[in-house]
Amino acid sequence: MFTIDHIGIAVKSLATAKSIYEKLGMAASGEEVIEAEQVRVAMFAVGTSRLELMEATSENSAVAKFIAKRGEGLHHVCLQVPDLPAAVERLKKDGVRLVSNEIKIGAGGHRYVFVHPSSAGGVLLELVEAAH
Amino acid sequence: MFTIDHIGIAVKSLATAKSIYEKLGMAASGEEVIEAEQVRVAMFAVGTSRLELMEATSENSAVAKFIAKRGEGLHHVCLQVPDLPAAVERLKKDGVRLVSNEIKIGAGGHRYVFVHPSSAGGVLLELVEAAH
Repeated sequence: MFTIDHIGIAVKSLATAKSIYEKLGMAASGEEVIEAEQVRVAMFAVGTSRLELMEATSENSAVAKFIAKRGEGLHHVCLQVPDLPAAVERLKKDGVRLVSNEIKIGAGGHRYVFVHPSSAGGVLLELVEAAH
Repeated sequence: MFTIDHIGIAVKSLATAKSIYEKLGMAASGEEVIEAEQVRVAMFAVGTSRLELMEATSENSAVAKFIAKRGEGLHHVCLQVPDLPAAVERLKKDGVRLVSNEIKIGAGGHRYVFVHPSSAGGVLLELVEAAH
């Protein structure tokens, strides 16, 4: 089954951005630094999905560059797909542009790939394997 | 409980944008024109949430203006909240900027309000009442 794993939101300040969701009565997870992406993140569980607030830890971070160019806001959507390798093969065959041609391994061993916004209506689309 | 009701995505062409999600194996609902917003939309169910692809039907549509300014892409996130009037009161009391000060009634009688991006980390945040 397809589900929304999370929505990534690029913010200047985690503390400021967290406050809006806390005012709504939502509770954030603890903060975590992801060195590979040069970001500090906080997650809000929302149903079976999550909001991922991302603050850059370096001006070289992709999130810092995104904010410099477009301002704070919605950055990417991550979908869980039933069979990631099959989905990637199908997309490649159809000429869909991926950010990297290979499935990558992230934190906790999860596998992921990004579809380039030019192939997805301007959306940076992350695909991960659905939990079994 | 909080859930992601839908993610709104502004696109130039519904047909083109739909194809990426169809290539992933997802199925769109039929298309619908929302006159009040001057958009034609297609919905993709994804878990308990939906992706809402929005194509402008007029150059005066907010979606057309968004695309002219920022290009295609992620437009808004809609969260279901447990008690919408209470949430709105709490936000107002905390000085959060809303797009309109009153709860509006949309298609099918659903009640909604938009939080201004300046108060939500650059995110245009729609709040709707959770189904009971």
